[in-house]
Amino acid sequence: MARDLILITDPDDPRIAAYRDIRERDLVGREGKFVAEGKTVLNVLFSNARFEADSVFLRENRVEGAQALLERVPQHVPVYVASGEVMDRIAGFHMHRGVLAIGRRVDTPGVENLLDSLPEDALVVALAGIANHDNMGSIFRNAAAFGADAVVMDQGSCDPLYRKAIRVSVGAALKVPFAREGSAEGMVDALMARGFEVLAMSPHGTVDMTEVKPSKRMALLLGAEGPGLPPHLLERLTSVRIAMRHDFDSLNVAAASAIALHRLWRGEKR
Amino acid sequence: MARDLILITDPDDPRIAAYRDIRERDLVGREGKFVAEGKTVLNVLFSNARFEADSVFLRENRVEGAQALLERVPQHVPVYVASGEVMDRIAGFHMHRGVLAIGRRVDTPGVENLLDSLPEDALVVALAGIANHDNMGSIFRNAAAFGADAVVMDQGSCDPLYRKAIRVSVGAALKVPFAREGSAEGMVDALMARGFEVLAMSPHGTVDMTEVKPSKRMALLLGAEGPGLPPHLLERLTSVRIAMRHDFDSLNVAAASAIALHRLWRGEKR
Repeated sequence: MARDLILITDPDDPRIAAYRDIRERDLVGREGKFVAEGKTVLNVLFSNARFEADSVFLRENRVEGAQALLERVPQHVPVYVASGEVMDRIAGFHMHRGVLAIGRRVDTPGVENLLDSLPEDALVVALAGIANHDNMGSIFRNAAAFGADAVVMDQGSCDPLYRKAIRVSVGAALKVPFAREGSAEGMVDALMARGFEVLAMSPHGTVDMTEVKPSKRMALLLGAEGPGLPPHLLERLTSVRIAMRHDFDSLNVAAASAIALHRLWRGEKR
Repeated sequence: MARDLILITDPDDPRIAAYRDIRERDLVGREGKFVAEGKTVLNVLFSNARFEADSVFLRENRVEGAQALLERVPQHVPVYVASGEVMDRIAGFHMHRGVLAIGRRVDTPGVENLLDSLPEDALVVALAGIANHDNMGSIFRNAAAFGADAVVMDQGSCDPLYRKAIRVSVGAALKVPFAREGSAEGMVDALMARGFEVLAMSPHGTVDMTEVKPSKRMALLLGAEGPGLPPHLLERLTSVRIAMRHDFDSLNVAAASAIALHRLWRGEKR
């Protein structure tokens, strides 16, 4: 069954107000909404029940390629279409992707509630001070690829539903459940109280990543490049290093997450 | 011994012409020059002999923190300093890093010559169609961290000395030797003729990465996300997969390089 498409010809049309000046709005927040971009990301948005969408907005030359996607869009979600010229004027820059949706944030459950919902066998990614949206998106992408059950983070970490973080995550930020706790300490306390072995990644870790033995409940704790994890946290936990050259001792935090999660993943049956 | 610093007060001063309108120039090329940004990157530039620099340019509030770096700058390389306001007008945008250098490209040796210069035990990264500067920079960073001896690439891959690629590589693009060959096939031929086992990374590879046995001369061949490596290349080579969830079968090429290079690295003694 073909979808009704609503043609937008006036950049000031109030129905597409949420798409206006996309970049400027990233800076001031979106009052409970987020922007999803790209066919792959929208496929994730409409394939799981975690988030609802307000609308979809397509560049007209992308409609034909988006038919399979449109079959997933619930009937009550309006699908707007505009010419490239009108879409660019609405967005405020050249939107070469031209496949957009506005999603609605949901109340996240809080770290303790999220952890309580996990199975007995679980792998969690814990983030302290990950303030860069590229890194946040990349870490979610790796978490989804290697089957992490949840991501928890402190208040010093940035928003996984920021436009760029969702895009870099290729939709994983909409797929892997996450929650936020005030402090890194509180997050670690909540994990340990539930029997998680918390592995703290650190260039000076005492255990090499290749020697880590996977256990039933594992959490991988990652801090920002540069400052790294606070010393008082490292002291409480098993600290894990990734061996590399001493004269180029520098790995991006997302690359470190890829190596560590690949190592900890126990395959599809988890 | 303190360095002479040359104060620039006029944004039109011809001595800093190479720093003018930095972003626009990225698009038109730099006639044999490149821009290095940030203290870490400049430390790499001035710690190895591969490239020469024309000049260094510092924001005045960064001079104090750059003393150790300045000791590495050869005496014949002028060091310019400007106020934040003047530097921003020269660069054409807000240069919050404020630590810059112009380097000179050198003639790269060609793939065959570069491969001929490598030791008997060698690890090479081979790139086909890596057109994104973020990915290029990240792959160089991982190559440096895990001791790759060289990077070779086809003409469909982007320039590792593009400003953003150098920055994302944290200087690794200035450290790890690289060369460019016309086609991916020619590059693979050159590797195989020199006894390299070429591992082609592919989501549908026949061997799991964790089962790869390191050999003396290994090359890791990476293609662009999406198209991946051409089928006729995959047929000739050992194709290697990284196992991941079937419902989120998507790993960034730089993340894949991190996992594979970490696996192939044989430690500092190489």
